[in-house]
Amino acid sequence: MANTSINNGVNVDALLAAREALKGAPQAAKFKWRASCKWMNGTHSNTTVQGFHGLGEEQKHKTEFTFDADHPEIFASEDLGATPVEYVLVGLASCLTAGVAAVAQNRGIQLRSVEARLEGSMDIQGILGIDSDVRNGYDDIKVTFTIDADASKKDIEAVVAQSQKRSAVYDIITNPTNVTVEVA
Amino acid sequence: MANTSINNGVNVDALLAAREALKGAPQAAKFKWRASCKWMNGTHSNTTVQGFHGLGEEQKHKTEFTFDADHPEIFASEDLGATPVEYVLVGLASCLTAGVAAVAQNRGIQLRSVEARLEGSMDIQGILGIDSDVRNGYDDIKVTFTIDADASKKDIEAVVAQSQKRSAVYDIITNPTNVTVEVA
Repeated sequence: MANTSINNGVNVDALLAAREALKGAPQAAKFKWRASCKWMNGTHSNTTVQGFHGLGEEQKHKTEFTFDADHPEIFASEDLGATPVEYVLVGLASCLTAGVAAVAQNRGIQLRSVEARLEGSMDIQGILGIDSDVRNGYDDIKVTFTIDADASKKDIEAVVAQSQKRSAVYDIITNPTNVTVEVA
Repeated sequence: MANTSINNGVNVDALLAAREALKGAPQAAKFKWRASCKWMNGTHSNTTVQGFHGLGEEQKHKTEFTFDADHPEIFASEDLGATPVEYVLVGLASCLTAGVAAVAQNRGIQLRSVEARLEGSMDIQGILGIDSDVRNGYDDIKVTFTIDADASKKDIEAVVAQSQKRSAVYDIITNPTNVTVEVA
């Protein structure tokens, strides 16, 4: 039950209403998220995000978001943006954090501050093709939350656990997801 | 073999030298990538990326990169940034695109333009907890490259396939990756 004296800035009533509405209209729950990437030079690219599909029709973010990605100078690159693997951490961090705010709101827990530190370990012998037994991606990601809230440590841990349970990006990373790559 | 008349802006010689050097120093190949996320309000967060660990010591991007993430207005949010799941697409797009440039350079293929369109399908009955048989994350991601290069369609497809084979983010998404979430 949402507690109206608690305000984490999440409109839980609207989300619960959406859940009820979508129960009767499962087709509207099918979303498509999109990104368009343009190669700039070397390992530098620029990706834009704006349109998506959901609730049965085309949708648009209020603004177009653009993201530069690159490799750092120690890989003989220009370091003009975060690395692709760091973008994965941004997605995971923001997904779990939004979930913490939403779950806390739903449980009547006032948040004062939420911070997450993420660290992903990766042996670059994989991407360099030195050892085919070493995977290309992260072998492990650790997320550490520091949360100041009007609740016990146990209740805060339960909020984080529920956020994890409902996180789209946590699921994408921890479970296999099908990716098809084609040339037009 | 790198062909010196070809210039995609990737220093393949440096990468091949790094591969040779790291063969004799596997400890230096162990990297840690990091991100720090701060909850702003509601589903809005801000994540910063700067420091990382690699080649046996602490490293730093030239600048700090910061990323706002949020949910769109149709989820009763402020739409102050891309969604977490869109950040995953940014990571995948930029990883595969950097790989295309590097592999093309190594194979002596001059690129003129590279664009990738990504679309991830997601049934939000998962994250809303409507149907526990529906996963939270993407059920499928499709990447479509449009590449203008001095090479046959077959050779271009082979470049894309090799990029996919060595992509860190492709691996993270398509294979299970361990994530530990803790409260400090």
